[in-house]
Amino acid sequence: MKILDFPTGPYPARIRIAIAEKGLQSRVQFETVDLYKGEHKQPAFLAKNYSGTLPVLEMDDGTFLAECTAITEYLDALDGEPILTGVTAREKGLIHMMSKRAELELLDAVSVYFHHATPGLGPDVEIYQNPEWGLRQRDKALRGMRYFDSLLRDRAFIAGDRFSMADITVIGGLIFSNIVKLALPQDCEALAAWWVGMQARPSVRNRVTMSDKPRPPV
Amino acid sequence: MKILDFPTGPYPARIRIAIAEKGLQSRVQFETVDLYKGEHKQPAFLAKNYSGTLPVLEMDDGTFLAECTAITEYLDALDGEPILTGVTAREKGLIHMMSKRAELELLDAVSVYFHHATPGLGPDVEIYQNPEWGLRQRDKALRGMRYFDSLLRDRAFIAGDRFSMADITVIGGLIFSNIVKLALPQDCEALAAWWVGMQARPSVRNRVTMSDKPRPPV
Repeated sequence: MKILDFPTGPYPARIRIAIAEKGLQSRVQFETVDLYKGEHKQPAFLAKNYSGTLPVLEMDDGTFLAECTAITEYLDALDGEPILTGVTAREKGLIHMMSKRAELELLDAVSVYFHHATPGLGPDVEIYQNPEWGLRQRDKALRGMRYFDSLLRDRAFIAGDRFSMADITVIGGLIFSNIVKLALPQDCEALAAWWVGMQARPSVRNRVTMSDKPRPPV
Repeated sequence: MKILDFPTGPYPARIRIAIAEKGLQSRVQFETVDLYKGEHKQPAFLAKNYSGTLPVLEMDDGTFLAECTAITEYLDALDGEPILTGVTAREKGLIHMMSKRAELELLDAVSVYFHHATPGLGPDVEIYQNPEWGLRQRDKALRGMRYFDSLLRDRAFIAGDRFSMADITVIGGLIFSNIVKLALPQDCEALAAWWVGMQARPSVRNRVTMSDKPRPPV
């Protein structure tokens, strides 16, 4: 299968990390779509993903799969351990809830801030901006950091006692926060400690260079 | 288990429909949270769902589960047929993609329009509005309708040949469109025909009165 993405992108990171955690690197080829040239808003790409976002997984039969949660569900159902989306009803529910909450309250909020209240991908790509909305989303993301910090005071991982898709979504949020220079509030000590642990994982540390690894011929 | 919701709400509809499709009515009690009084933005409710949205499922052990996709995953893993979130990797991926796309391009867009460019839930609840953003989301939702119409020209259901969570999310979008009087564009004939079929399903038709049905004692 093929992953259409941009190596340093925060949403692409979610799938690169999932692939590395599951040890699926040898089954994937990467193809870069240049965000700064707006390739993801061109008709050729929009035919693959109506929403014009990265990453997109192309199955071996040519079917395109967009949206990080959907791609993670696909990878999880394709293959075995570790399962990132939960096994029991309770785990599945809590992981999906926390991953969606990490989108709403952190990652997507930082993304809106980037595209609407900073130069974003540049004037050729950001053809409409709503700075007031962008700044409100920045403030929402800062509140989201405090919320996730409060969770991590009593648990090791975002959705409980195991690493999951929900951790990956918060990681995506902090990767994006780093790009836009939105620092963690100083009192978010539990979130900061968790973030140090996450950045030490090979799946997170090596994600950008993943496509350069030697792969066996397909 | 208990569902905290508002009987006529479009997001609550997603879970009411899922419960009815799966025949789980006898295992659920409903409790109303009054959106028009802003009860979902009060501290007592925010302690149950940080994001301040409905519906929320309360498990028998007191755990709260928010976000429609998460609740649907939970219900699907609790119980048997029909599975609404897919069985094979491909089905799971496509259903999650289409459900997320239905949120992004239709349901959530209509919701932002309602809360930002109409009186929404009234001045006591809508304490910040960004009408320009709301109107852009309305236009996005109209484009989304055309997109789903184009899909339904070659398939019976949103994610393929079976009813799924993705259909329910588009149904939520059209329920909300109806509330805000956002009509389907006249040329969306395939979407209109699908919508007639969906409204004929007992799960959709009877969703608002669901809580009034007699239930066996728990």
